[in-house]
Amino acid sequence: MTFDEIQTYAETLAKKARVASAKIRTLSADVRNHALQQVAKALRASEAEILQANSLDIENNKATLSAAKLDRLTLNHDRILAMAKGVEEIASFPDPLNRVLESRKLENGVAISRVSVPLGCVFFIYESRPNVTIDGAALCFKSGNAVVLRGGKESIHSSKILAKIFRSAIASCGVDADAVQLVEETDHAVVTALLKQRDYLDLVIPRGGENLIRAVVEQSSIPVIKHFNGICHVYVDKSADIAMATKIVENAKTQRCGTCNTMETLLLDKNLSDESIEKILAPLRQKNVEMFGDKETALRISGIQDIGDASNYHHEYLALKCSVKIVDGVQAACEHIEKYSSRHTEAIVANDPQAQTYFLNNVDSSSVMVNASTRLADGGVYGLGAEVGISTDKIHARGPMGVESLCTYKWILLGDGQIRT
Amino acid sequence: MTFDEIQTYAETLAKKARVASAKIRTLSADVRNHALQQVAKALRASEAEILQANSLDIENNKATLSAAKLDRLTLNHDRILAMAKGVEEIASFPDPLNRVLESRKLENGVAISRVSVPLGCVFFIYESRPNVTIDGAALCFKSGNAVVLRGGKESIHSSKILAKIFRSAIASCGVDADAVQLVEETDHAVVTALLKQRDYLDLVIPRGGENLIRAVVEQSSIPVIKHFNGICHVYVDKSADIAMATKIVENAKTQRCGTCNTMETLLLDKNLSDESIEKILAPLRQKNVEMFGDKETALRISGIQDIGDASNYHHEYLALKCSVKIVDGVQAACEHIEKYSSRHTEAIVANDPQAQTYFLNNVDSSSVMVNASTRLADGGVYGLGAEVGISTDKIHARGPMGVESLCTYKWILLGDGQIRT
Repeated sequence: MTFDEIQTYAETLAKKARVASAKIRTLSADVRNHALQQVAKALRASEAEILQANSLDIENNKATLSAAKLDRLTLNHDRILAMAKGVEEIASFPDPLNRVLESRKLENGVAISRVSVPLGCVFFIYESRPNVTIDGAALCFKSGNAVVLRGGKESIHSSKILAKIFRSAIASCGVDADAVQLVEETDHAVVTALLKQRDYLDLVIPRGGENLIRAVVEQSSIPVIKHFNGICHVYVDKSADIAMATKIVENAKTQRCGTCNTMETLLLDKNLSDESIEKILAPLRQKNVEMFGDKETALRISGIQDIGDASNYHHEYLALKCSVKIVDGVQAACEHIEKYSSRHTEAIVANDPQAQTYFLNNVDSSSVMVNASTRLADGGVYGLGAEVGISTDKIHARGPMGVESLCTYKWILLGDGQIRT
Repeated sequence: MTFDEIQTYAETLAKKARVASAKIRTLSADVRNHALQQVAKALRASEAEILQANSLDIENNKATLSAAKLDRLTLNHDRILAMAKGVEEIASFPDPLNRVLESRKLENGVAISRVSVPLGCVFFIYESRPNVTIDGAALCFKSGNAVVLRGGKESIHSSKILAKIFRSAIASCGVDADAVQLVEETDHAVVTALLKQRDYLDLVIPRGGENLIRAVVEQSSIPVIKHFNGICHVYVDKSADIAMATKIVENAKTQRCGTCNTMETLLLDKNLSDESIEKILAPLRQKNVEMFGDKETALRISGIQDIGDASNYHHEYLALKCSVKIVDGVQAACEHIEKYSSRHTEAIVANDPQAQTYFLNNVDSSSVMVNASTRLADGGVYGLGAEVGISTDKIHARGPMGVESLCTYKWILLGDGQIRT
C-alpha cells in the first residue's frame, strides 16, 4: 500500500468503528450477552477451520520463532475450548454499563446522576497469541465498545478466522459486525496511522513487551492505558513472622517468575538476625535463584553476586533471579522503593503496626500489601471479573483493571424547566 | 537559554516536583488546609506588592493587548480579595484524599480496599489571568499534588509574586516550597521540554483557547485532560411545554454566550407549529441573536441566514449567534448531534417520556439534560466544590471536574500470610 492508501485504510477502519459504536452502545445487556454466547458456540463449531488457519501461521513461522513463541502461537482443541469458555465467562459477568455511580437532588430541584457508559472505540494492539483476538473483542463488546484489533503478523491467519467467526456470530444476532474489526494489513504503518485517529478512537490498549508499549506511547495522540513493567518489592521488617516471610518471599519470586507481579527486589531489615535472613533465603537458594546485591548486602549475606551499579536495582529479571538489599528499617525501605519501583506492587512483611502503617501511607504503588504475596496483584484475585490488563498509569485506571475500565460515565440531569441564574 | 539549558531547566523543575510530591502526599488534611489558610492571609497582607508587580505587566502589554485581555490581566483590591476567598473556600471543602472507594474481604481472607490518593505531579498551563496561578496551585495542593505552573508571558511579573507568596506561606508551615513551582523562563521551548518529562509529571491540564490546548495535546507524552470546545445543542420536541422551551432556549443562548456550555445549535422538531416556533425564537430575536440555518430551515422560518456548507453546524460562535435546524423528531435530532456535537452538553425539552428516554440513551455527551438549560453544566452547579475544569475527554474524568479528578487510587491489601496458589 502507498502512504495515502494506508491513511485511507486506517481512517476507514476508525470511522466504521465510530459508526458501529453509536449502534452498539445502546444495546441491552441481554442482547450483548446473547451475542457473546453465539460467539462461543461458533468457536466450538469451527474447530477444524481454526486449526487449519493456525497451521498456516505455524508453517510460516516455525523457522524463525523460538519454541516458547511458537507454543504461544499454537492452537489446539483444548485452547479453542478455553477461548469459548472465556467468552461465556465474560457473558456471565455483571453488566458494567448503566450503573448509577452517584445520584442526588440539586438545590434547584434538578435530579442529577452519573451513569456508566461505554468509552466508544478501543484500539487493541497485541502480539502473537491468537486467543487475545477473542479475548479483546469479547471484553470490548461486553462493555458496549467498538474495537479495532491488531495482532502480531505471525498470527494473522489465525486472527483473521477468529475475527471472522466473531463478526458472523454477532451479525447473526442483528448486531453491526463492524463492532469488531481486525487490521488485516500487516504493514506497521497502519498502526502508526491508526494511532492518529483521535477523532474516532477513544482509547488504545497495547498488550505485549515493553518495547511495543513504549513505541505505542511515543506515537499515539489517543490516550493509552498500559503497564510498562513491574519492579515489585517485598520488604521484610525486623518485626516479621519469619515463617510467614519465608513463605511470602518464596511465593512472590518463584510461583511464576515471568509475570509482572513477581518480586524483583527483596529488601531485608538490617536488624533481622543472620539466622532469620538465612531462613528467609533458604527456599530461594534451594531453587537456585540467583541473587544480586550491593557491597553492604554481599558482605552480610553469602552467595550474593555484585549488582554493579546501584541503578541495576531498576532491573526486571522475569526469571529465577532477584536483587537483594539490606536496608535500615521501614523508612529506608520506602526510600528505596520510591527511587527504584515501577509503582506496580509492593509488600511489607511485619507485625509492628507502626511499620505497616508507615509502609501503607508512604508507598505510592498501584497495590500496597501487608503480609501477603505480590503475586496476588491480579484482576481475578481482586474479584474484578474479566481482566482487561494491569495499569501502572495513574490516570483513569490503576492496577488490575476489570471491564469497568473500558467505561466512562455521563451526567444525566432531569429538570422541569431549570435555567442558570 | 540554549537548547541544552532548556532541557536541564525543565528536567530540574520536574524532578523537584517529584521530590516534593513524595513529601506532601502524606500530609494530613489539617496540615494542607491550614497551609492554604496561611496562603489566603498572605495574599491579603501583600496587596501593595501584588499591585506593583501587576502594574508592570499592564505597562508592558497595554500597547498590544485588546481591552478585554488587558482587563483579564488586571488585578485590583477586589480581585485580590476574591483570590484569597477562593483559597479559603478550597481549604473548607471536604478532603479528596484517603476516601475508601470500595472495600471487601476476598475468599482467601485478605481485606482489600481501594483508597483515593494524589496523582503526584501536575503540570498546569494557562494564559494571562494571574488569578489562575493561585487557583491552580490551591487545587493541586488541596489534593496533595505537586504542581508546575506555567502562565502566559504577559502576566509573568504578577505570577512570580503570587507564586512567591504561595511558596513562602506553605514553607512557613514546614511544607516543601517546591510543592508549587512557577516556570519563570517564558521561552515556549520550556513548555515543550516539560511536556516530555513523563517520568516525573503525571498529568497536564491546559486551560485556555483551543489553539493552546491542541498544541499541548500534539506535543505531550504525558496524559492531558482538556476540553477543546462546546458545540452544545438544545432540541425542542413537539411534546415540549412551549413556555418552558422558550425560557430554556433563551437562557442557554444568552445568559452568558461566551462560555463553553452555551447553546450553539437549536434543533426544532418539524412537527412544532409555526406559532410555537415563533414563541420560542421571540427572545432571541428581541436580543438580536443572529441565526444561521440550512435551506429547509430558512424556508420554514423567517430571518434565518444561509449557513452555507452543512459542516458549519460544527461552528462554536461564543457570541449572540446560533445555528438552527428543523429536524424530523427526536431520532433525527440525535443523529444530528452524533454528527456535529463536541460531546459536551445537550438538552431536550419534551414532555413525552419516550422522546426523553430515547434522547438520554442515544446522546453520547458528558452531560445530557431533560427540560433544563445547558448553562447548568458546571462544577459549582453540580455540587462538586472547587472546579478544576470541564473535560470533553472520556478517559479519567468527563464533564465538570472537582478536585477528585486530581486524584487516583491505590489498592490496599491486608493479609496474614496469603500467597498465590
